[in-house]
Amino acid sequence: MRLQTIRLTGDRTQAVLTIGGQWLPLPATDVGELVRRTDWRDIVAEMRRTASAGDYLDEGSLPLAPVVTAPRKIVCCGHNYRAHIREMGRPEPEYPTLFAKFADTLAGPHDDIALPDVAQQVDWEAELALVIGTTCRAVTPVQARDRIAGYTVANDISVRDWQRRTPQWFQGKAFDATTPLGPAMVTADEIDPAEGLRITCTVNGELVQSGSTDDLVFDAAHLVSYVSQFTTLAPGDVILTGTPAGVGAAATPPRYLSEGDALTVEIERIGQLRNTIRFRSHDAYTAQDKELAANV
Amino acid sequence: MRLQTIRLTGDRTQAVLTIGGQWLPLPATDVGELVRRTDWRDIVAEMRRTASAGDYLDEGSLPLAPVVTAPRKIVCCGHNYRAHIREMGRPEPEYPTLFAKFADTLAGPHDDIALPDVAQQVDWEAELALVIGTTCRAVTPVQARDRIAGYTVANDISVRDWQRRTPQWFQGKAFDATTPLGPAMVTADEIDPAEGLRITCTVNGELVQSGSTDDLVFDAAHLVSYVSQFTTLAPGDVILTGTPAGVGAAATPPRYLSEGDALTVEIERIGQLRNTIRFRSHDAYTAQDKELAANV
Repeated sequence: MRLQTIRLTGDRTQAVLTIGGQWLPLPATDVGELVRRTDWRDIVAEMRRTASAGDYLDEGSLPLAPVVTAPRKIVCCGHNYRAHIREMGRPEPEYPTLFAKFADTLAGPHDDIALPDVAQQVDWEAELALVIGTTCRAVTPVQARDRIAGYTVANDISVRDWQRRTPQWFQGKAFDATTPLGPAMVTADEIDPAEGLRITCTVNGELVQSGSTDDLVFDAAHLVSYVSQFTTLAPGDVILTGTPAGVGAAATPPRYLSEGDALTVEIERIGQLRNTIRFRSHDAYTAQDKELAANV
Repeated sequence: MRLQTIRLTGDRTQAVLTIGGQWLPLPATDVGELVRRTDWRDIVAEMRRTASAGDYLDEGSLPLAPVVTAPRKIVCCGHNYRAHIREMGRPEPEYPTLFAKFADTLAGPHDDIALPDVAQQVDWEAELALVIGTTCRAVTPVQARDRIAGYTVANDISVRDWQRRTPQWFQGKAFDATTPLGPAMVTADEIDPAEGLRITCTVNGELVQSGSTDDLVFDAAHLVSYVSQFTTLAPGDVILTGTPAGVGAAATPPRYLSEGDALTVEIERIGQLRNTIRFRSHDAYTAQDKELAANV
């Protein structure tokens, strides 16, 4: 199954099943809320069985939201593609390097990425992401495999100057609405990234990253198992599995994004993120503060 | 005002005003939900004005929950007390070192801290914490000062062996239910940590940390301002401001916590956390997974 989250009017969103160029609306605000129901597969099957032609929307007739809009947890892994680790001259790690993101760091799969102009060195990171389907606490990798609801695509857009200000990366990874997630979650019964899916990133049409999801040191099931040893993972939680070689910071000389640069990130059989970089003046950013503070 | 969150039956919690040895229940599940209402000060004043003697509970008659039970964001600062930085032989930092926690890392102010036995090197960190009262985006420190709802106490209990497995601290800081927060939030009109409040930690009665909240490199208002440059802070969000000298990992030889060790963390004029360390076997931990997975 291919599941997506669309934007309705206002701040409302809705999960949809995408099939044959059409969208079938589902009774959930997003794919995260959908998979929090234990019987979500039955719900989707029943909706399909009882739907009439008029229930469907044309695919693409509304904008897309992050496929999971409000995960309670987003855990990210760094240093996880073997080719990238070799390129950087590092040894293969014994444990996954993990950091956290909050839900409002997410963006829609085709949203502009609006950054305040205090962000100077903006870089891309194509990533495979997974969505938890069943609660996990101290599970084995074999158990973990059956608890992944599906897979999606992320671009872990990183502000390298902020990331490198201190030993902890968080502040360079947490700018609001800078991590597009989508365009779809493909359920785990249909694809297995451990068999190798091509993952790519382009900047203004130029291929800058190209890898395969079978090159992960810690694959999806191992990451879920590892994280579940210290924190409980719940349905709708998201794990980003790391990026392959070819980020801008590793180029000679380093290369960062400018106003209007167009990014695509694609994983075979899942889909493509397309986002454009926009910088906003500090004035525009603080003006938004006044609006937010007035409408708490 | 002194605000607390109490545990009712089941998973339910309630915010209370603590006054004269009594609790006045407030119309909010916790202090975080309370401060998400722009008119929360008026609500509390009105409840007090209209309360009759029978509306009050005796202080201490029910257990305490984390004073904010479900912050959307918990941002933590490391390397922030000057005395601790000098002790470690480090230069004073130019930027705050920040990392993130998720809400279910929080524990009640008197809860046992239950760790799986894969955690070996368990350490204490007494911290001042602040609760956001008004949304902040790219605010100045002066603006930030007026948007802090109040101050509370945290113990950022850290699993050093996991924290040091990789360059990112997250996994050693994210064990479920290991960061007690409370016992009360004292509103920002009543105390100003920048004027210097004594902060202490004891282990089995022995004083191990003692500092003053005027020794912070980045004080509360500066931290709120800095974080708000990259991510919007909303009412009920929590910032942990770092720990003074005297953690177990910095002792010679290093000293870590054992089964049954009793911790207190106290900040003058706010209150005291009292928690006991408990280790659970991996079997007990995975048994809980079976229960969780069955009751998603």
